[in-house]
Amino acid sequence: MDDSVRQHKYVLAEDQMPTTWYNLVPDLPAPPPPPLHPGRMDPVGPDDLAPLFPMDLILQEVTGDRYVDIPGGVLDVYRQWRPSPLFRAHRLEKALGTPARIYYKYEGVSPAGSHKTNTSVPQAYYNAKDGTTRLTTETGAGQWGTALAFACALYGIECEVWQVGASYDSKPYRRLMIETFGATVHRSPSDLTDVGRQLAADPANWSGSLGIAISEAVEVAAKDPKTRYSLGSVLNHVLLHQTIIGEEALLQLELAGDTPTLIVGCTGGGSNFAGLSFPFLREKLAGKIAPQILAVEPESCPSLTKGVYSYDFGDTAGMTPLMKMHTLGHDFIPDPIHAGGLRYHGMAPLISHVKELGLLDAVAVPQSECFAAAVQFARTEGIVPAPESSHALAIAVRQALAAKETGEETVVLTALSGHGHFDLAAYDAYLSGTLVDEAVRGDRFDESLAALPTVG
Amino acid sequence: MDDSVRQHKYVLAEDQMPTTWYNLVPDLPAPPPPPLHPGRMDPVGPDDLAPLFPMDLILQEVTGDRYVDIPGGVLDVYRQWRPSPLFRAHRLEKALGTPARIYYKYEGVSPAGSHKTNTSVPQAYYNAKDGTTRLTTETGAGQWGTALAFACALYGIECEVWQVGASYDSKPYRRLMIETFGATVHRSPSDLTDVGRQLAADPANWSGSLGIAISEAVEVAAKDPKTRYSLGSVLNHVLLHQTIIGEEALLQLELAGDTPTLIVGCTGGGSNFAGLSFPFLREKLAGKIAPQILAVEPESCPSLTKGVYSYDFGDTAGMTPLMKMHTLGHDFIPDPIHAGGLRYHGMAPLISHVKELGLLDAVAVPQSECFAAAVQFARTEGIVPAPESSHALAIAVRQALAAKETGEETVVLTALSGHGHFDLAAYDAYLSGTLVDEAVRGDRFDESLAALPTVG
Repeated sequence: MDDSVRQHKYVLAEDQMPTTWYNLVPDLPAPPPPPLHPGRMDPVGPDDLAPLFPMDLILQEVTGDRYVDIPGGVLDVYRQWRPSPLFRAHRLEKALGTPARIYYKYEGVSPAGSHKTNTSVPQAYYNAKDGTTRLTTETGAGQWGTALAFACALYGIECEVWQVGASYDSKPYRRLMIETFGATVHRSPSDLTDVGRQLAADPANWSGSLGIAISEAVEVAAKDPKTRYSLGSVLNHVLLHQTIIGEEALLQLELAGDTPTLIVGCTGGGSNFAGLSFPFLREKLAGKIAPQILAVEPESCPSLTKGVYSYDFGDTAGMTPLMKMHTLGHDFIPDPIHAGGLRYHGMAPLISHVKELGLLDAVAVPQSECFAAAVQFARTEGIVPAPESSHALAIAVRQALAAKETGEETVVLTALSGHGHFDLAAYDAYLSGTLVDEAVRGDRFDESLAALPTVG
Repeated sequence: MDDSVRQHKYVLAEDQMPTTWYNLVPDLPAPPPPPLHPGRMDPVGPDDLAPLFPMDLILQEVTGDRYVDIPGGVLDVYRQWRPSPLFRAHRLEKALGTPARIYYKYEGVSPAGSHKTNTSVPQAYYNAKDGTTRLTTETGAGQWGTALAFACALYGIECEVWQVGASYDSKPYRRLMIETFGATVHRSPSDLTDVGRQLAADPANWSGSLGIAISEAVEVAAKDPKTRYSLGSVLNHVLLHQTIIGEEALLQLELAGDTPTLIVGCTGGGSNFAGLSFPFLREKLAGKIAPQILAVEPESCPSLTKGVYSYDFGDTAGMTPLMKMHTLGHDFIPDPIHAGGLRYHGMAPLISHVKELGLLDAVAVPQSECFAAAVQFARTEGIVPAPESSHALAIAVRQALAAKETGEETVVLTALSGHGHFDLAAYDAYLSGTLVDEAVRGDRFDESLAALPTVG
């Protein structure tokens, strides 16, 4: 009888849950370039952001503090599913025949099924405290829309979600889950906004993008003083909220008595990756550990590996501040791949800055390799991963197989950011052999990169 | 700022996880009537069951031991998601404005998303130990098929699932998840079996039933010596495996410092309900606590409330042993309600016996009331319940509202047996107002009850 089905879970007690979020900025050798006002072209101040965000979140966006206290009310909600488990992937390792040790931090245990609740809850909390009665947002695959709908239901805030057309069409259950939580979902581009009507006129925009959906949600929020906007990734305060993942994982690897040689996460806007890796980067900068830190993106939307580091808009219509980031151009429309959460033209400015500082690496993978890893993971570890998370798994598998060849000691830590219960049509395509890899054409970026705004 | 969003979770450490399953039989004032051989009409012996089940499971089926050790290999797998959390439903209580305290044991944290893994893992474990290379089974809503597919993937056993036609058609994502775990799914009635071909000739059988799917899976297993059959509910050994739910809940309520006045669970075959309630019934029989123990079934398939207590077949074709149980007749085909897991004509013999002894009560509810409770639960507690589990929630809500009127101290404990991520089309029907309640027509049972087998 084979005993290799054993599973190791590293659990923290509730009173070991971190009570602060970690801000990487003060530990960096240089501060990140500031966002610029799109009209004035000078750094935006808190007042510029006030129409869209409550002041508590704006202050977190610009804080120089190393640690930010998590409010008691947010901790109370976090405790429904946190601390989240860290697993050693014994069964996957065995199937791969690798000497590598693979750990995954599983965020799919949250009510909404992904890491996104780590930030939706504090965002709804601070908005409720400030009297916001309605929040608008974008969503790609739907993980973020679900998470914000959940959080808004808790605090009695109305929630309106613009979902990227390609995902809206292919994932009806995601929309239904968001509606079950009481929120409203619109297919983006929609006819409810000026920008939606304008962009929908071009058939190339019909599948939508996160950039377009952001423009729509921002437009609606900007027009109504009781409505604010909520973003699921990219911004500093969102990355900040996600650092609870890495802080917990640090404690859990200590329980496991192990030290990672590679920390790998998928990147769309970058919040899951930053949440996992920044606390480890702090330890690396302090000379305590020396893992490689690796971001994985889809070949069809490779902002870190093929984009330029430049000021660009966060949305397609150019309504947001200009952010210095790795970008494929704000009007780039990625192929409608299954990992809808990774279809964003840019990258979090803070992650982009860290990459420029040489503190992280990036790699792009095709989706077929991701689904192959995801199915192997499901059949060994028992969890069906979100297509986004599968990008990190693909690299974990690559590294584990490499370790088998080289014999080099390899300890992989990855964040399994969410489950794929609403992505099974994509698994069906993979299993039935109809899933194709995105065409990777550099010339597609040329046009959108040529349209970057001129700064300074 | 409202602080009522707090959530209380009662967590057990891994080393507090029970290491034995509990067998209620020796604690009952009288033993349950034995199953009978369908040909000989005398009690079945272990050898009669050997073509379908490994001897370890057969011995558990008939054991008189009060406690059965959980094998170390099974405990290792359980630890991936167990001990499962017990939650106090503060947010639901507040929305109801009730003084009642509501606790729910959440089994949706398992990889397959329901309590069914508590038995699929030991069943696959004992089969693997015994050299079984293929397992066949039935599934209704798909929770059981998913759980067995997961367990078979762990132990390298081929898995073939007959899914009830009504569920196969309405829940494609369930089938896809089972396939992602590597199992094969057939729509039942299928043309792969004699019984399937025969029953499919009558259009009334086209929507299928658990009884039909069981017949098909049993037929295939009986024909091949390396293939065995696995059942997701009803049998003693299945109920036994589920008692880990109640054993954990007992410890967790002790942590909470509370004592239930009502224990409520949904019943299809009865394993989830038995798993939660039997350990509490032990304590009640010992005079330590005095909760009401209440089974909830759908109005369209009310075996406990409208069936007769009689010997009947477990499947539609009459291939299984005869079991003394509450039944609507083995050829009764329930309406295709959304709670596919509750569409079973009979009830676990052990639960039926306990009801005859006057140790539990039963009630039937219409599905609209269940979905109303489920949506309220989702919007407060953040978890979208399986339609099966929502039956117990409907009664929890009824009792909580009654407590508001009477002021009587009410402490409800329920098992939230699984999540409803694959049932969102049903939620859509409810939210859009197209969900209708099943017609409850007593005359529909008359025919199937008249066809009960004659015994003795």
